[in-house]
Amino acid sequence: MKALIYHGPGMKTWEDVADPEIHEDTDAIIRVDTTTICGTDLHILKGDTPEVAKGRILGHEAIGTVERVGAQVKNIAAGDRVLVSCVSACGHCRYCREARFGQCLNGGGWILGYMIDGTQAEYVRIPFADNSTYLVPEGVTDEELLMLSDILPTGYEVGVLSGKVTPGDTVVIVGAGPVGLSAITGSRMYSPSHVIAVDMSDRRLEAAKAFGADITINNTREDPLAIVKDLTDQLGADVVIEAVGTPATFELCTQLARPGGHIANIGVHGAPATLHLESLWIRDLTITMGLVDTFSIPTLLRLLTTKQIDAGAFITHHFKMNDIMAAYDAFQNAADTGALKVVITRQ
Amino acid sequence: MKALIYHGPGMKTWEDVADPEIHEDTDAIIRVDTTTICGTDLHILKGDTPEVAKGRILGHEAIGTVERVGAQVKNIAAGDRVLVSCVSACGHCRYCREARFGQCLNGGGWILGYMIDGTQAEYVRIPFADNSTYLVPEGVTDEELLMLSDILPTGYEVGVLSGKVTPGDTVVIVGAGPVGLSAITGSRMYSPSHVIAVDMSDRRLEAAKAFGADITINNTREDPLAIVKDLTDQLGADVVIEAVGTPATFELCTQLARPGGHIANIGVHGAPATLHLESLWIRDLTITMGLVDTFSIPTLLRLLTTKQIDAGAFITHHFKMNDIMAAYDAFQNAADTGALKVVITRQ
Repeated sequence: MKALIYHGPGMKTWEDVADPEIHEDTDAIIRVDTTTICGTDLHILKGDTPEVAKGRILGHEAIGTVERVGAQVKNIAAGDRVLVSCVSACGHCRYCREARFGQCLNGGGWILGYMIDGTQAEYVRIPFADNSTYLVPEGVTDEELLMLSDILPTGYEVGVLSGKVTPGDTVVIVGAGPVGLSAITGSRMYSPSHVIAVDMSDRRLEAAKAFGADITINNTREDPLAIVKDLTDQLGADVVIEAVGTPATFELCTQLARPGGHIANIGVHGAPATLHLESLWIRDLTITMGLVDTFSIPTLLRLLTTKQIDAGAFITHHFKMNDIMAAYDAFQNAADTGALKVVITRQ
Repeated sequence: MKALIYHGPGMKTWEDVADPEIHEDTDAIIRVDTTTICGTDLHILKGDTPEVAKGRILGHEAIGTVERVGAQVKNIAAGDRVLVSCVSACGHCRYCREARFGQCLNGGGWILGYMIDGTQAEYVRIPFADNSTYLVPEGVTDEELLMLSDILPTGYEVGVLSGKVTPGDTVVIVGAGPVGLSAITGSRMYSPSHVIAVDMSDRRLEAAKAFGADITINNTREDPLAIVKDLTDQLGADVVIEAVGTPATFELCTQLARPGGHIANIGVHGAPATLHLESLWIRDLTITMGLVDTFSIPTLLRLLTTKQIDAGAFITHHFKMNDIMAAYDAFQNAADTGALKVVITRQ
């Protein structure tokens, strides 16, 4: 089959490799019908995650068709169409039984396109298939559903739920890429007073407005701290969501929160940040960080099928699999192309 | 009157100053019967809080007798014996109405011995007296009660409650000074599996054992990370409480927490810490920090009067006010003197 192979920082190819095989009775082999590229794939290609081996097939998002399953798989069967979660879950360890699937102790968690071969390929092996896939429901398109593999649960769980957005809150989202936009979508469900998007790209801030930000701040020419303080009796925001993954944006988030506020880090970081405890210790802040668990996929599916989420709005570009290198180009050059999510389909 | 005056980093005197006067109708003048010294006073004397003006009377803990009150004070009257909270509270701003008295917007919060003159004096002016004092109940001694001005609420609220200690937890407390010992006392109320104290002083670790730590680690010669991991299936602690206030101890706390764990910072910091987001972003950590609100004083009073807290156990030394310089010496040289809380009483 063809697959997108990581060869070390900055290097990738679309090339022929062996088809995946069943390793464990709990595996399934899925034919990938639709996949996409995540900002995390760019972090890997930048070298932020040196634990990723050369030769790895990237990608952790897919809608596909079950080819065959291991002897112990019960929830899905050959021919079924499934949503693949970016997080694999054994389903029976301590963390899985607390719905913290991202921290699975038996080799699950985020492994696809990271510790094992991923979904940017014609076929993919999905471990713990019963707990790592969802049957595709009626009435939604594959490409809408694809947004539930990772970005919508990530923005919702790691941003909105961990940040404890509540009605009346002023919420600031730093970074208006796909995950930041997901956090805007999720924040809007909780009737905030304001959703403020901060980004360096006017194009992304336009998208943020379309997704429900009522205030946008381009921090190349405006001062987010002054604007947020003016809007909040000089206190700061109730919840600040970091959706970039750099020391500078994280440190900005800690400045933007009011005393008693929450900072929810979603960003994948490749370097340490400075935590200014000498001024922050007294400010009653709560800082959360973590990997998505995708426990919210069933909830988000209901929101999708009842048209309360417009998942299609994330999708700006379409490519066929053989053009995946062009898809990467479009996604990497988002500032020029305006790419949010690029959908990649089988030939 | 006599008072302990801060003259800049490292410099203090016990000298004659003018008696305090009523400034506002909500003030009370309290005759200080019993006071003490806090680790925070040492932070001020070290220069960690440059916002403290020279000439300031230090101290934020006291039991006293009401001398006179402003025209609007209703809850207390001349002759009443009162516990002075380390936190003053206007009682009607947004934060006070959420019981976040430490963040009072009308000039309250932690101000005693910091922004205004404090309790290490023969008399003290207490602003917002109705909301900043508690009548002394029957059946407890002044010196037991004094532990409720600051250290017991601080360990309980900022450590145990913010850290969300729950039954079965393994709790690590880094720093076995008075506030760390308070956090041990508070953690024990929630039926943890283990309470582990980490300190560099064997003498303080002995105290930690007496307060309820079942495991003690001297980190000058033992490796806390290895011991905690061995005890927790290599996962780490459920809750880690920082009760020192240095970058090194804070960073140790972030290492000791399990995926999904809580780190509750109590320490007063004078320098930034490094937050290793490049390895922590994926670990589902929650970090809290903040100033005590003392909303738990009524709860702790019930625990004290029903003998569920042994507040007397904190007290190692007694001094008269005229010997306050010697009290400081004993408290500052805790490694030699074994001082926990030093009680200072009127002549």
